[in-house]
Amino acid sequence: MQSNNPQWSETEKQIAREALSKAYAKETEALIAEISQKSSEITKIDDVWSLNDYLNSKRYDIDGKYDYRDSTPVFVLAKLIKQGWLHPDDLAGLTPDKRAKVTALAKM
Amino acid sequence: MQSNNPQWSETEKQIAREALSKAYAKETEALIAEISQKSSEITKIDDVWSLNDYLNSKRYDIDGKYDYRDSTPVFVLAKLIKQGWLHPDDLAGLTPDKRAKVTALAKM
Repeated sequence: MQSNNPQWSETEKQIAREALSKAYAKETEALIAEISQKSSEITKIDDVWSLNDYLNSKRYDIDGKYDYRDSTPVFVLAKLIKQGWLHPDDLAGLTPDKRAKVTALAKM
Repeated sequence: MQSNNPQWSETEKQIAREALSKAYAKETEALIAEISQKSSEITKIDDVWSLNDYLNSKRYDIDGKYDYRDSTPVFVLAKLIKQGWLHPDDLAGLTPDKRAKVTALAKM
C-alpha cells in the first residue's frame, strides 16, 4: 500500500498492510474450502463451466480488493470489515478518527 | 455442423455430427474426472488460480473444437482422432476417400 496520503503515518500504513494480509489469508483460505466443496459436487460439464465462471469472478474481485497500491485504505478496510474478513479490532493503532471513518463506511 | 461442402451427403453429415457428440461426451467426462482430481489436490490459493487458468484454457479449446458451424469437418474429426476422443471406426459410413483423408490428417 503505497499511500500518498500524508495523514497516514508509517506505523498506520504498516497496521493497514498487516490487516489486509490477515484478511487476504482468511478470505483465500475460505475460497479454497469453498472450491473443494463445489468441486466435490460436480457431476456434469455445466457444473465445470459454472465453477470456471465463479473462479473468474472471485479472482477479479480479490485481485482488485487487495491491490496494495490502493491509495484509499479507508475504503478497502471498510469493505473487508463489512464482508467479515476483518474485525474492527484489527485496526487498533489507527487514530480514532480513521477507525470511526472505517466503521461508519463499513455500515453503509 | 452446417457444412456447405456439397461433397458431404446428409447421411455423412449425420455421421460426423454423431461422432462429434460422442467425442464431446468422452472429452467432457474426462475433464470432469480431471477437475475432481485437481481440486482434491488444492492446498494453497495459487493452486486455485492454476485451476482457473486450466479451466479457461480447456473451455476455449473445447468451445472452439466442437463448434458445429465448422465447415471443415475433416479437420475436426482428424484432430479428435489424434487426441484420442474418436476412433477411426466411429467414422464408418463416410466414403473411403474421406476416411483416408481424416486418417492421414490425424497422423500429421
